[in-house]
Amino acid sequence: MQARVTIGDVAAKAGVSKVTVSYVLNGRGADARIKPETVARVSAIAKELGYQRNAIAAMLKAKRSHTIAIAFQYADLFGTGSDFTNEVMRGVCEAAQRRGYDLMLHTRTAASPEEEVSAFTDGRVDGVLILRDADDPTLRLLQSGPVPCVSFFCACGNAWVDSDNVDGGRQAVRHLADLGHRQLLVLAGAPGSGSSNERVQGALREAAILDLPDPVVMLGAEKGWKELLASSSRPTAVVAWSDDVAADVLTYAAEIGLRCPEDLSVIGFDSLTVAERLGLTSIAQPVRAIARAGFDLLVDMVDGKCPPGQTRRYPVVLHPRATTGPQST
Amino acid sequence: MQARVTIGDVAAKAGVSKVTVSYVLNGRGADARIKPETVARVSAIAKELGYQRNAIAAMLKAKRSHTIAIAFQYADLFGTGSDFTNEVMRGVCEAAQRRGYDLMLHTRTAASPEEEVSAFTDGRVDGVLILRDADDPTLRLLQSGPVPCVSFFCACGNAWVDSDNVDGGRQAVRHLADLGHRQLLVLAGAPGSGSSNERVQGALREAAILDLPDPVVMLGAEKGWKELLASSSRPTAVVAWSDDVAADVLTYAAEIGLRCPEDLSVIGFDSLTVAERLGLTSIAQPVRAIARAGFDLLVDMVDGKCPPGQTRRYPVVLHPRATTGPQST
Repeated sequence: MQARVTIGDVAAKAGVSKVTVSYVLNGRGADARIKPETVARVSAIAKELGYQRNAIAAMLKAKRSHTIAIAFQYADLFGTGSDFTNEVMRGVCEAAQRRGYDLMLHTRTAASPEEEVSAFTDGRVDGVLILRDADDPTLRLLQSGPVPCVSFFCACGNAWVDSDNVDGGRQAVRHLADLGHRQLLVLAGAPGSGSSNERVQGALREAAILDLPDPVVMLGAEKGWKELLASSSRPTAVVAWSDDVAADVLTYAAEIGLRCPEDLSVIGFDSLTVAERLGLTSIAQPVRAIARAGFDLLVDMVDGKCPPGQTRRYPVVLHPRATTGPQST
Repeated sequence: MQARVTIGDVAAKAGVSKVTVSYVLNGRGADARIKPETVARVSAIAKELGYQRNAIAAMLKAKRSHTIAIAFQYADLFGTGSDFTNEVMRGVCEAAQRRGYDLMLHTRTAASPEEEVSAFTDGRVDGVLILRDADDPTLRLLQSGPVPCVSFFCACGNAWVDSDNVDGGRQAVRHLADLGHRQLLVLAGAPGSGSSNERVQGALREAAILDLPDPVVMLGAEKGWKELLASSSRPTAVVAWSDDVAADVLTYAAEIGLRCPEDLSVIGFDSLTVAERLGLTSIAQPVRAIARAGFDLLVDMVDGKCPPGQTRRYPVVLHPRATTGPQST
């Protein structure tokens, strides 16, 4: 490994000052009245030594790094290998390749929202594609800052791309009601998750329209729903805000001897590989297309090609599989 | 979206020169004999306006970005969603999070090796973790350059982490020989792939040791092996350099009516989800552990904590599943 070649190295070898080298390498030799033969000699020596103009310095001038940051709710989500994360990354990588951008995965954990925002506004990236809860402080700071920012899978801030989560919740309840279910359990994501809240909202609204009893709403990540499913007052069907939570329900149902769908119908959300593998009925959203669209919108903003405040909703569709069936108990 | 606050904005509001602001914000007000009350006023105004020191400029001084680049053989591999790529990214993300680094995925396609290398040596990253063919020109340029570089899944260059590919090829042939197979087909990866070449080498060496006829070697990506499998002189077993190629063989075998393992035994490499799903016998390498180890080695080099030229081999192990059985024809 060689040390980086500096302007000083070039100056020493050429027998001129660093200032002279700097003028020559910036194409301003004539401005500084440097002799053409000196310009030629310095240029040749710079090339011979393999001098490379510091591109960070160049970025300072151009103010463009052709790099886009991706920020998830938690840095460790990049390492989960979940179907959802993989699909998001596939879409983003495809778009980055097509648009000629590198990606910065924000895997570093910050001590404060201010410190985190500084990781995005320090010039390493031209924009931020962010998947955060609607009330995330970093998201709020970013959106009032100088760096273009697009939310994806969360309809929050000035510019975002998401799916029609409300309609997803609605379709799930409609499907279960069509099968005769009336006692529903809705399992939600983190309280700050915009997409989860919209799905729950859609489910509750549809239950009201169809004159079903109010569904019970619980957090998917907590254990309250296990007690409910094991009790005599258990619901006959579950709407889970994600395929992963639905998979947990299927596992627990098997443990306590409930058959799916005979004793319990279950619907997930995303309809990715895990849903296919488990035969899970699920609401499909076009994850890769949303990821690509978020990236494209952000780069268009960076390029000044679109006004701020663009938003886009993608439709969702129910994929019926083996975990939902007629209400029978 | 507000414009970035500059030193000029602070200077204008404080009624002082930009040079004064620069001294104050760099903590050198006293050196420059600037009055304490001016220092206090400039500092307060900078804070009030939300001035942020340009971290690219700071990086120029510190020469550290706390960002590591990941470069695959082709930029579009980031978007394939293959089990192997996902596992590699999981390991790298876990290590990056633990070490407090961001990651730059090199998804931009370069016009030349020189242009590509400049994307890694321009100061955006502190080091490069690279998965390339052994004879890749960018890899060669990088390894003689100033930026620390570690190869993973390829035993090439000065510093690398890989699995014991030769032993993998050896174990595959030994397993098939134990089952009575003598006519073997070995399917290789790209001719420049170091890991594929080592696997093929191990297979051929073991066949020689066991006094089997020389295995036929073909490229997995081409179609010659289909003709061979459909012919009367077909081998009784296939050693594929990857699970994906093994999966292609299983698909084609089913198409032409060959039963696995009764008519044809098949072994893959990696033993990830696709192998589990297909019941494919496969040589398992610890993909995530290798990815983590490559990242850790690179950051240790960046930190000057380890001498250059470190290398590490991980053992592999055969996972017997349903696609290999006794030679019967």
